[in-house]
Amino acid sequence: MSLIVVGTMAYDAIETPFGKTDKIVGGSATYAAYAACNFIQPVNQVSIVGFDFAKEEMNQLESRGVRLEGVKIVPDKKSFFWSGKYHLDMNTRDTLITDLNVLADFNPILPESYQGSEFLMLGNLMPSIQIRVIEQLLQRPKLIVMDTMNFWIESALEDLKKLLKMVDVLMVNDSEARQLGGGFSLVKAARAILEMGPKYLIIKKGEHGALLFQGKEVFFAPALPLEEVFDPTGAGDTFAGGFIGHIAKTRDVSFENMKTAIIIGSAMASFCVEKFGPQRLKEITKQDIDARIRQFVDLVHFEIALQ
Amino acid sequence: MSLIVVGTMAYDAIETPFGKTDKIVGGSATYAAYAACNFIQPVNQVSIVGFDFAKEEMNQLESRGVRLEGVKIVPDKKSFFWSGKYHLDMNTRDTLITDLNVLADFNPILPESYQGSEFLMLGNLMPSIQIRVIEQLLQRPKLIVMDTMNFWIESALEDLKKLLKMVDVLMVNDSEARQLGGGFSLVKAARAILEMGPKYLIIKKGEHGALLFQGKEVFFAPALPLEEVFDPTGAGDTFAGGFIGHIAKTRDVSFENMKTAIIIGSAMASFCVEKFGPQRLKEITKQDIDARIRQFVDLVHFEIALQ
Repeated sequence: MSLIVVGTMAYDAIETPFGKTDKIVGGSATYAAYAACNFIQPVNQVSIVGFDFAKEEMNQLESRGVRLEGVKIVPDKKSFFWSGKYHLDMNTRDTLITDLNVLADFNPILPESYQGSEFLMLGNLMPSIQIRVIEQLLQRPKLIVMDTMNFWIESALEDLKKLLKMVDVLMVNDSEARQLGGGFSLVKAARAILEMGPKYLIIKKGEHGALLFQGKEVFFAPALPLEEVFDPTGAGDTFAGGFIGHIAKTRDVSFENMKTAIIIGSAMASFCVEKFGPQRLKEITKQDIDARIRQFVDLVHFEIALQ
Repeated sequence: MSLIVVGTMAYDAIETPFGKTDKIVGGSATYAAYAACNFIQPVNQVSIVGFDFAKEEMNQLESRGVRLEGVKIVPDKKSFFWSGKYHLDMNTRDTLITDLNVLADFNPILPESYQGSEFLMLGNLMPSIQIRVIEQLLQRPKLIVMDTMNFWIESALEDLKKLLKMVDVLMVNDSEARQLGGGFSLVKAARAILEMGPKYLIIKKGEHGALLFQGKEVFFAPALPLEEVFDPTGAGDTFAGGFIGHIAKTRDVSFENMKTAIIIGSAMASFCVEKFGPQRLKEITKQDIDARIRQFVDLVHFEIALQ
């Protein structure tokens, strides 16, 4: 059992209606790793950081079975930095600052020891970089999952389309799905996207849950109705980490097991938003996770008898 | 087994990105009755129409077990008329025309023969009118369900608060729940609303499904992901009709049975939006409804084993 997670490890400064942080740890691969390591270890991390990335955060990750051999440390540059401000509805945000720093030169090299990993999670990055990771693998993983974003749909569509033919699962949010697939109907957009290559499509709708499409089948997982969404940053990456973590643990890539994986991803994401950054993900125990999953079961369970 | 449905019977002219209608039949009580009659007959209808309301529509309703003794026909006035235009996302609309006509004088009188009905669905109307209906009932129904809208929250809050103490179930959409309960968190808004009187709260989120709250319990029902939402008019009233129809059929007002009722309401609403007006509701058979409910079961069903 082994999993490669590729993505950013970064610093964020976040402002929400509930408060404001100085620089705190963030990045797609950070969130994904903190989620996935609850289900599978090791997590073979691939990323790039600068001299400023806290050693103690690295230690934290390592103590949870996240291997950092594939994380390049650039001694004379700073880590990727993002700063954003959420609107009152928490669904929309303005980016205030994007300092690429080390990310400008990111050319991931897979360590030899990562070869043979069975599962691959490609966090949101320039599609050509995601492709380069896949091309370095001597053996194709059982399942390749990728995330992307509107920026790449607009600026790197050719590479993205090439990449879509190389992966099994695409994860995007609803507006990205509409942008990539065309039109307002998510069902139609999903059909168009599945024709571009991936066998499975997961559309993340934030507080409105997530949809899984495969062929003509569709599964819906709700988001847990929360009293307060404190900070949505990283929720999508945490979802991805929980999803691929469960798949890697069970080594079962059936549609049925993907449903379960989506519920687990949703449960992990529901923790993520409770505190700033990945803080809450560091606190939770297996008991917390199981209790949260039970809440999801209760949330959607109903009995119906058709006569 | 008997059900009273109170609301409007009207004409609508609708424009959507897919087309445009002349005057077609609409109104909250029309949609609710066409949905409820699949599960319970008779439906004891209470409404008001003008000289222009088509006799053949009345006959259609009567042939489906909808009793019209409580529908007042005003010989020298026209029926309530609403005209609206949906935006491209189908979630928002502009009202173009509202001609109250007969609705300006609506003072519902319950026929004697409706007394003793066990279930009451109060469609969206001025709260003082909804109160007057309840006050005419010699025996309190087993369950009183009401709908309302932003207009009454803004203009008739005192009456609305009085009414909320008299009913069992409140149905509103998400923006109305936020307006009535305060704040952005639906969970907090729900708690505030439940303190105003109703034992159950259903928050309709359109294409994002529906939430049922009781005390600390919550249930979520998705909306079916549809290729095309052709016309959303009446979907909420159809949901209400399916919901109360199932409750009246089963005479079971438990939380568990309300979950089932919400799934059935959602299934009925998913038909409603497939064609203009209540057209699709007139076409469907029991087989269609059962097949649609099975789609809902498949949509949210997952197995999870906690170790």
